[in-house]
Amino acid sequence: MSDIHTIGILGGGQLGRMLSLAASRLGLSCHIYDPDPDAPAKAVSATATTAGWDDLAALTAFASAVDVVTYEFENIPTEALDAIEAAVEVHPSRTALATSQDRLTEKRFIESLGLQVAPYRVVDSSNDLEAALEAIGPRAILKTRRFGYDGKGQVRTGDGTRVADAMDQIGQAPAVLEGYVEFSEEISVIAARDRLGRVVAFDPGQNIHKAGILRTTEVPARVSDEIQAEAVKQARSVLEALGYVGVIGVEFFVTPDGLLINEFAPRVHNSGHWTQNGATCCQFEQHVRALAGWPLGSGARVADVRMENLIGDDMDKVPELAETGAALHLYGKSEVRPGRKMGHVNHVKALKVRD
Amino acid sequence: MSDIHTIGILGGGQLGRMLSLAASRLGLSCHIYDPDPDAPAKAVSATATTAGWDDLAALTAFASAVDVVTYEFENIPTEALDAIEAAVEVHPSRTALATSQDRLTEKRFIESLGLQVAPYRVVDSSNDLEAALEAIGPRAILKTRRFGYDGKGQVRTGDGTRVADAMDQIGQAPAVLEGYVEFSEEISVIAARDRLGRVVAFDPGQNIHKAGILRTTEVPARVSDEIQAEAVKQARSVLEALGYVGVIGVEFFVTPDGLLINEFAPRVHNSGHWTQNGATCCQFEQHVRALAGWPLGSGARVADVRMENLIGDDMDKVPELAETGAALHLYGKSEVRPGRKMGHVNHVKALKVRD
Repeated sequence: MSDIHTIGILGGGQLGRMLSLAASRLGLSCHIYDPDPDAPAKAVSATATTAGWDDLAALTAFASAVDVVTYEFENIPTEALDAIEAAVEVHPSRTALATSQDRLTEKRFIESLGLQVAPYRVVDSSNDLEAALEAIGPRAILKTRRFGYDGKGQVRTGDGTRVADAMDQIGQAPAVLEGYVEFSEEISVIAARDRLGRVVAFDPGQNIHKAGILRTTEVPARVSDEIQAEAVKQARSVLEALGYVGVIGVEFFVTPDGLLINEFAPRVHNSGHWTQNGATCCQFEQHVRALAGWPLGSGARVADVRMENLIGDDMDKVPELAETGAALHLYGKSEVRPGRKMGHVNHVKALKVRD
Repeated sequence: MSDIHTIGILGGGQLGRMLSLAASRLGLSCHIYDPDPDAPAKAVSATATTAGWDDLAALTAFASAVDVVTYEFENIPTEALDAIEAAVEVHPSRTALATSQDRLTEKRFIESLGLQVAPYRVVDSSNDLEAALEAIGPRAILKTRRFGYDGKGQVRTGDGTRVADAMDQIGQAPAVLEGYVEFSEEISVIAARDRLGRVVAFDPGQNIHKAGILRTTEVPARVSDEIQAEAVKQARSVLEALGYVGVIGVEFFVTPDGLLINEFAPRVHNSGHWTQNGATCCQFEQHVRALAGWPLGSGARVADVRMENLIGDDMDKVPELAETGAALHLYGKSEVRPGRKMGHVNHVKALKVRD
């Protein structure tokens, strides 16, 4: 098929694990790089490196041992990527990663494509925050520009929040203030672009977050066909503008004024887990195909699916879920902790007819 | 869920590999035992032992390190199993294995259930073979009682075959002569039985063999609903009579006189690979669930599928197949050899509607 047989993955959590399982199905090998010796992806992969993100010798050896590198999380130190890129290609590209790593860069990039984001202001100080609250209104969310995930690095403002407290809560980090958006639905598009520029998108999923963490994704999304098509079109614009290779997850708010892009993640995405049981070629295989220089698989949705994350004590539901005929996906994490993503379940609700 | 977290698998070929991938999806670990350091299952499993079938110390250490043991092929030496069973449970049971390992024992067992097999005679010598050919007729197949797979250890008799030559071709091994069966279809039932005696069967698949090797399996089989139900019923009888735990593959001939059982395999089965894309819970996960003491998953078929084996140079078709939207499953074997099973592809042809 191609000269790419071994895929290096930075990060060995559940996304790395499911990428590795998909690569194995295609007869390819994975090499996981993670400082944690017990990272879940390592147990299912041919090779593993346990070393820190500042261990340039280990990073260089890893890069030399694989045919291409990808990552399962965005907060990889620049120096680590420099060391790797000296030896081997990294996808999605540094541009895609750098753009998504900084909320301000990301918003400006999205605006440069003629697409909409929530109203925002740059906040580098308490003075900035006061001015921003005046401009946008008090009901808003202060978000650090970098290193946020699953609702971390965010503070809601509004009645009675003191500016100094809010700045303290985010550690005085460079931030943006985002205006509160009155949205009717949150949806996301998982799409892939291959090395030849071909794009395959899955149907948009409809997401429900609680406390900043994704709880469920449902397909089909309960929004019009026009909105779905527009979301896919916008995701495609992002992929093309970035010259992207691999899978991306783009999150949208559906508002009376149209779609706003909340953020995108340059990787496989939790809201795409439904594809494991709702499409012939899931997001993980799609990403592997793009990386390995294969043609992309079919993105056609073959079922209605509700994906439910299993977080912390949700694991207590597993025995019951195992009885239901739903498709369970557990990550092999030995320790259950509050807020920790332990697995997910795909409830396949109805199937589409196809010839 | 249960106290079983690590599954030991004897044999690290493609069946062991796909069992391991299914176990990983459920958060469980596998430990592969295989004399070949490059056995494909080892690259996707947490732990591997590379040692011979006669290395009792290695077998004992392996058995002590896992919570349950299963196997992906039938020809495991008795002494190896004795060593393992001293430390840990083996499923499917020794009875199931011993019954399937010897064609004569297997046929007598099937007959004891009131089920039909092809006409046969025991052949231990040239004299026996002459008498058997006279009783059954010249158009028949001489098969060694033990160690046959993929058409090996078999000789067709008929016009002009000399008895002495036929006995030489099977190395004078204890054998049975099977009368040639005029069948209209070959079908197989993949079914699972859990530790509590519950049975879940997949829809029968229709098989096409060439030169003794399975080439394609299609579901639905083009036989009546009555025949499908009867095949499932017979597979269930076999499972129950053996007090079986795990997945079995039972092969049938469809004849004007009803179903004949050709043979069964006490393991996941090539003709069950369609379940990976045609059922929510595939045969590999079903086997893992049974071994681990989980409830079985849903065996409901959700699609029409044609599974096509990729054997030897069939690998040349992979680039083309990768374009078609079919589901590819490659085994990660580095060397292509004639007759070697390299992968398979599931063509998902149509989907069933379900509420």
